[in-house]
Amino acid sequence: MPPSFDYLLKARKVICIGRNYAAHIKELNNATPKQPFFFLKPTSSIITPPASTPSIPSNTLNFPRYPITEDNKLSTFYSFHGLDSKTGANPSPIYIPQGVTVHHEVELALVVDDYLSNIPENVNIPIHDVISGVSLALDLTARNVQNEAKAKGLPWSIGKGFDTFLPISEFISKDKLSNTVDFQKSFDLKCSVNGQLRQNGNTGLMLNSMSKILQHISIMISLEPGDIVLTGTPAGVGELNPNDTINAELYQDGKLLTSMEYDCVQKPGPYVYKET
Amino acid sequence: MPPSFDYLLKARKVICIGRNYAAHIKELNNATPKQPFFFLKPTSSIITPPASTPSIPSNTLNFPRYPITEDNKLSTFYSFHGLDSKTGANPSPIYIPQGVTVHHEVELALVVDDYLSNIPENVNIPIHDVISGVSLALDLTARNVQNEAKAKGLPWSIGKGFDTFLPISEFISKDKLSNTVDFQKSFDLKCSVNGQLRQNGNTGLMLNSMSKILQHISIMISLEPGDIVLTGTPAGVGELNPNDTINAELYQDGKLLTSMEYDCVQKPGPYVYKET
Repeated sequence: MPPSFDYLLKARKVICIGRNYAAHIKELNNATPKQPFFFLKPTSSIITPPASTPSIPSNTLNFPRYPITEDNKLSTFYSFHGLDSKTGANPSPIYIPQGVTVHHEVELALVVDDYLSNIPENVNIPIHDVISGVSLALDLTARNVQNEAKAKGLPWSIGKGFDTFLPISEFISKDKLSNTVDFQKSFDLKCSVNGQLRQNGNTGLMLNSMSKILQHISIMISLEPGDIVLTGTPAGVGELNPNDTINAELYQDGKLLTSMEYDCVQKPGPYVYKET
Repeated sequence: MPPSFDYLLKARKVICIGRNYAAHIKELNNATPKQPFFFLKPTSSIITPPASTPSIPSNTLNFPRYPITEDNKLSTFYSFHGLDSKTGANPSPIYIPQGVTVHHEVELALVVDDYLSNIPENVNIPIHDVISGVSLALDLTARNVQNEAKAKGLPWSIGKGFDTFLPISEFISKDKLSNTVDFQKSFDLKCSVNGQLRQNGNTGLMLNSMSKILQHISIMISLEPGDIVLTGTPAGVGELNPNDTINAELYQDGKLLTSMEYDCVQKPGPYVYKET
């Protein structure tokens, strides 16, 4: 079966936990939160590996767009095509905005398959029962934009939300996962840049378990079928620059589930980092 | 024609400008930003006026849900039903989370009808051409949660994203709007709590025009057809408590376009405000 991306069409939100691995908190000199906290990434930041489908998605072909080009084709200034309305794919390189320090954060993504709302704190959610599957994600972060936001008390949405800032893999159905009692500790995440290993962490190192993440989100922001939950990044985050190639891998019980590779290029368009 | 809410099913994101009216910046003692900034609200926070459809949406009737109740019906602990998959409606009161100071912020919402990406700064976007219509929104804000996030450099997503924190009106097609040269100045927003007028502002008071808002978003986070853009709140924000009734009105050229009314109740479920 070819890789499947249509789960991305069903995602109404992408919600991510911050600071969920101790060594990552330390490497950025952040405070350890007393309770988990979360942020959103826009679904427009999703891209899929190059060559996952044709380069211009079917849904944007006949749609007006602004600014309008003479031949009514997507301007080369676009940094966005949108998910293909049939396949869900959106193949693209990673765009590095001018003046922005982009960091890679490799993460395990859970694909929710239920309505989760107001789950009591003492409930241990059987993760395998409430997800349809998982995928491998890169939570790209504009570190200097985020640092400015943190210093000034501004939202993180821009620093986390630029176009192409959510490279994600095909869907991995839970049928393909082993539902071990050690599910929480069964995944390994790796991330390399230009062939050099930067991140290598096991999901057993999470400060808040997958169950705790979903429970805590559910008492504030209900989850819907299709929603994507990013579970935090292990240590080793680092910079991405134009001409870099990034490779990420997801393993369960030592077996490779998926890998993906993206090239980095300069973001087109007028954006240049400025102070807010 | 009955009020139409199906535009909400097409919204892939809700993106909001912060601090776009001078008097509102002053009332909260905030700094005036050098350039516009934005934050996201999850689409799961959307509710529509009571009695806009049946109380249990068709899409959730046969879906498993967690925690599962004995009769497989939505638990009374749910603070979320989801948009009706046919009509887009999601009638609900506003839920006030325990220990949270909820503020009302009435805003004009633009419903985008195009792909907007990397629009150059000098382009004056013809708003009437790139939207399908507008609606009236309340950007509810957990002020104490947001203040803590601002002080600690944390994301705003929780403070802005609780279930029911985006009460919104039916769709107002642009056919029903006058496409005046003074479009930017043509709308008035009003918000009353328990019959007392709290907010009353004209869109001509925006620091960044609707065109500037869309242009600036587009160079960072591309907009897609269906996306909802909230344009900021005028002065007069204030507290909402259980048993309050809030009423909001949207006018163009002095003519009432729509109004909506919501009751406030205590949020069900285990959430109680705690420090992060």
